[in-house]
Amino acid sequence: MSAQSQPEIRLALDAMGGDRAPDMVVAGAALALAQHPNLRFLFFGDEARVRPLLDRHPALASASTLMHTSDIVTNDAKPSVALRAGRQSSMRLAINAVDDGAADAVVSAGNTGALMAMAKFVLKTVPGIDRPAIASIMPTPRRPTVMLDLGANVECDADNLMQFAIMGEVFARVLLNIERPTIGLLNVGSEEQKGHEELRAAHALLRENKLNLDFRGFVEGDDITAGTIDVVVTDGFTGNVALKAAEGVARLYAQLMRDAFSSSLLSKIGYALAKTALVRARKRIDPRRYNGAILLGLGGIAVKSHGGADAIGFANAIGVAINMASIGLVERIQEELQRQNGEPRAAPHTAAV
Amino acid sequence: MSAQSQPEIRLALDAMGGDRAPDMVVAGAALALAQHPNLRFLFFGDEARVRPLLDRHPALASASTLMHTSDIVTNDAKPSVALRAGRQSSMRLAINAVDDGAADAVVSAGNTGALMAMAKFVLKTVPGIDRPAIASIMPTPRRPTVMLDLGANVECDADNLMQFAIMGEVFARVLLNIERPTIGLLNVGSEEQKGHEELRAAHALLRENKLNLDFRGFVEGDDITAGTIDVVVTDGFTGNVALKAAEGVARLYAQLMRDAFSSSLLSKIGYALAKTALVRARKRIDPRRYNGAILLGLGGIAVKSHGGADAIGFANAIGVAINMASIGLVERIQEELQRQNGEPRAAPHTAAV
Repeated sequence: MSAQSQPEIRLALDAMGGDRAPDMVVAGAALALAQHPNLRFLFFGDEARVRPLLDRHPALASASTLMHTSDIVTNDAKPSVALRAGRQSSMRLAINAVDDGAADAVVSAGNTGALMAMAKFVLKTVPGIDRPAIASIMPTPRRPTVMLDLGANVECDADNLMQFAIMGEVFARVLLNIERPTIGLLNVGSEEQKGHEELRAAHALLRENKLNLDFRGFVEGDDITAGTIDVVVTDGFTGNVALKAAEGVARLYAQLMRDAFSSSLLSKIGYALAKTALVRARKRIDPRRYNGAILLGLGGIAVKSHGGADAIGFANAIGVAINMASIGLVERIQEELQRQNGEPRAAPHTAAV
Repeated sequence: MSAQSQPEIRLALDAMGGDRAPDMVVAGAALALAQHPNLRFLFFGDEARVRPLLDRHPALASASTLMHTSDIVTNDAKPSVALRAGRQSSMRLAINAVDDGAADAVVSAGNTGALMAMAKFVLKTVPGIDRPAIASIMPTPRRPTVMLDLGANVECDADNLMQFAIMGEVFARVLLNIERPTIGLLNVGSEEQKGHEELRAAHALLRENKLNLDFRGFVEGDDITAGTIDVVVTDGFTGNVALKAAEGVARLYAQLMRDAFSSSLLSKIGYALAKTALVRARKRIDPRRYNGAILLGLGGIAVKSHGGADAIGFANAIGVAINMASIGLVERIQEELQRQNGEPRAAPHTAAV
């Protein structure tokens, strides 16, 4: 299929969000455009800083519109304050573009709490979802595992967790093409009596299995990257800590390997010989490859890039937005929720544990 | 120093705890004895199963006493039930041996909740500590980081977290020889307004800094293995999930590397050349090397081995018990708590953030 025949996808980018913004936002967009020529970008940010960066990428500049704003949501801004005072911020204007229909999705590497608060305020949640959740995929030796919530909701009740399970299941089905994703609830032990009260209540709700989800009970932290479960459901506090702990170990491991390969002439030669295979393996768990978390449950597509992302990482977050927009994720979740409430998919199975 | 001149250390072992018990308990003890000839073991378990294993290791058999019991605490036993009904279990009798003075420390790879409940009931907490915590060390590119609680207390209040900080600080000073360990509180963001209410309250307590701890504020999941902080304080739910998530990624990484090195002839040769350096690097993050979590805050030394540990892992857990017993950890924590309450160590510093 030629690029010309693909429908245009229009992305609103918060040019000022992230530790290395606006440079990595523009460079990431340029990388994404090289891969997906059917993109159009709406950049929101400080013209004096963004324009010179765009000018370095003529192809990108001609596929982009730059909307000037000097207002920025800082990383330490409280979400409530950002929501009130940041109406002209690059983040907010980029979100508004999705609501206006000017863009198909928004991508920001800025303050997560502010992005969630603004996106929820502007785009609203879809009917049946009380709180949106942040979802992303994690590498495993098998197919990737979906994990949510990664930080949108510090405290969650059983209903929230059940809604996350529904959304995570649709996400895994639609994005990863898994016919009947298995779902686990993150806990400190697989025994039913362990864990917080909300977890036990969520377990009971999911066990009732009125939703016809393939719920497999409690899972533990090491199941996240084991490939034993397709969707890991947790609250935003636990999910965020687990995600970052996992990223930290991946970085530690990569550094120890680098040190080992440069420690002697023999190991340098060894690296050179094994390089192709090693680079392939490392790519499979490169956190940049997994960058781009989706804010699930909103009436529009919003993707959060890691704040520390570089251009490659940001380009991956753009890739997630493209996937979601192409798939029509919002509509798929809405359909699923309507189906869950109206006509059940099939006779309930007995869930295996 | 010859082995003969070292004081004898007497360890009580729960021979029946752990997925691969009693085999890996006996094999682990044999490994530990080869390294530390000054050990004496008290095995508690099923004589019919343990005796034949001991007979395979004559040196170990002659350094050991086997106390028969057929009662075992299962992995799915509720702590409260184990406490009531498991008075003749191998786990309980091994803990009793520490209380009786027959052993200097107990090591078990069994049910964590039951071990904690029994150890707390039998050994009591030291004055000033309401709840014991499970602590272990994590690998980093620099010196190791101490993390606690790893699963003893699913919910913690601000006072619990503050007590964990005190105990973790002593642990880091005594075990890792860090003169003034830095302390961080695990959260989802480094901004003060984030996180649970108990976390904010604990932050305020530690900020007051009456304890003269070097408190550095909130840290995030990726700080656990970054070497940026000496002691990471968290509740047992979050700590357990983070620990297991970290272990999961380490396993995933190791598997991907193995696959990469066996994927072609060239990479096999590459591995052979770099092997020495790679094995050294891998050892640094081998979860078995970090096996052996200590139950801090008790009136005796109790070490929890990972339930899935093999002989090498269990031998490491024994090594932790030896260290703690040699150092007199319980007395050091008691001294520190008395000093904290009575005579302050020095004029309070202003904590750096």
